[in-house]
Amino acid sequence: MRRLLCRLSAVAGLLLVGAAPPPPAPTPAAVLAAAPAGAWARVAPDDLLVMELGNGARVAIALAPEFAPLHVAAVRRLARAGWYAGTAVQRVQDNYVTQWGDAGDASPPPAGAVLRLPAEADRPAAGLALVPLPYRDSFAPRVGLVRGFPAAAAGGRAWPVHCYGMVGVGRELAPDTGDGRELYAVIGHAPRALDRNIALVGRVVAGMEALAALPRGTGEMGFYATPAERLAVRSIRLAADLPAGQRPAFEWLRPDSASFRAWVQARANRQDAFFTQPAGAIDLCNALPPVRPVAR
Amino acid sequence: MRRLLCRLSAVAGLLLVGAAPPPPAPTPAAVLAAAPAGAWARVAPDDLLVMELGNGARVAIALAPEFAPLHVAAVRRLARAGWYAGTAVQRVQDNYVTQWGDAGDASPPPAGAVLRLPAEADRPAAGLALVPLPYRDSFAPRVGLVRGFPAAAAGGRAWPVHCYGMVGVGRELAPDTGDGRELYAVIGHAPRALDRNIALVGRVVAGMEALAALPRGTGEMGFYATPAERLAVRSIRLAADLPAGQRPAFEWLRPDSASFRAWVQARANRQDAFFTQPAGAIDLCNALPPVRPVAR
Repeated sequence: MRRLLCRLSAVAGLLLVGAAPPPPAPTPAAVLAAAPAGAWARVAPDDLLVMELGNGARVAIALAPEFAPLHVAAVRRLARAGWYAGTAVQRVQDNYVTQWGDAGDASPPPAGAVLRLPAEADRPAAGLALVPLPYRDSFAPRVGLVRGFPAAAAGGRAWPVHCYGMVGVGRELAPDTGDGRELYAVIGHAPRALDRNIALVGRVVAGMEALAALPRGTGEMGFYATPAERLAVRSIRLAADLPAGQRPAFEWLRPDSASFRAWVQARANRQDAFFTQPAGAIDLCNALPPVRPVAR
Repeated sequence: MRRLLCRLSAVAGLLLVGAAPPPPAPTPAAVLAAAPAGAWARVAPDDLLVMELGNGARVAIALAPEFAPLHVAAVRRLARAGWYAGTAVQRVQDNYVTQWGDAGDASPPPAGAVLRLPAEADRPAAGLALVPLPYRDSFAPRVGLVRGFPAAAAGGRAWPVHCYGMVGVGRELAPDTGDGRELYAVIGHAPRALDRNIALVGRVVAGMEALAALPRGTGEMGFYATPAERLAVRSIRLAADLPAGQRPAFEWLRPDSASFRAWVQARANRQDAFFTQPAGAIDLCNALPPVRPVAR
């Protein structure tokens, strides 16, 4: 598998005498390389969380206020208050989640923080620009993309989907007990039983490997058995609040662009030389809009 | 989310005066705890690979000869020849695969090894005991379980599915170039575009975290940029060939058991106190038969 997923553009076609060979189908990488500037949309600095971990790694998370506006506002407020500094990653459960923030022993919330937010695990479908994905889904009659986020819809409601890299707000048993002090990212096969049960607030757009490659916790549900195993969270701040020289920036492919449609089509029907049997479909969680850094 | 996925058995039901409350729906954990001995099937020692890594971690892989008999035979032969000792993990690509064995500079194959196996990425559906899963799938009209393995079927053919933890045989571009010297395990959201394109030979049944939590490679496609980053593979042997005292043993829930059906039902319709909105479905890759170690 050394060459697995090599980006080769040459595809053998049936060469008929007197007929031109069919043009090679573009690879996903070729589609991306050819996408015009207008097919990309920038993540707003006020919608971009930047987390610095104790080992020097940096994780960037694009916020999704269209799905959980009050939860996103709470996270922004905690970030602006500097509240996350000194918290830690305290749970890494294999094929499930990495979780950080409040470990039950963290400092009290800043003045003015709302400690019981209403449930925001789904919302009215009306008013949400969901670009549908033209493939079957196991869970919902309609799935697709909202900006850079995976989403599903049914019965007049819509909700973001727990794909790899999606970030949610931990809560206790009651649906209105999340407050933003505890966050998690999905690090395995999409645990979609969580959809509609817990508020998702964003998606990791850079540094995912820093969350996914951490040692798994050996305690119950992947919690680290001892505080010494925890990885410190140095800070979580909004990109908008960072000095211009330290401010990362990203853009993602617009799901309503022709480039995104072509990219999905190419991913669902791989014609690279490695693939002999195109799948003919793609799962929502393998169709998240690609992200790229923007040079300052 | 400290209590996310707590196994609580009490579920609030509507309590009507004069009517008995409905019995609480069992949690997945309760279903497993109640499964009779006959619902479990042991992985045969000749079908169990045991990999020892340079950091002391141990990974166990159940082989799937019903899907790729020649590839499985090749892997067994390499293991029995001690060929994997001294190879290394050389690729870890986030949300995709961890890959080990031949890095292009490994020792030659043992005498008698077959270096071009025929493609075995799918097989006739006839004769395969596929227990169907009663939920929609994005890729195939029929999916389900074959012993402990996820599988799909269409048009008279059947194939194993690239779920988290499944193990395949690397190959070059031509479908008949795999020889068993290079193996990989899925460490992210199921890359199902690989289904029917590459031979799967097994499933990690223990030690998955040792493959999933490794540092990601920074080279192209997640290859480690330098040999120093590689993690040594001390050995890969068959459990049948280990001294009795070092031989691990596992059993998995039989997909044709009532317990498995109840477990899937409970996972697809979570009634634990945390879940307010059952999904009503489950993805194949979240329905892999549970595995447990067997005490010697």
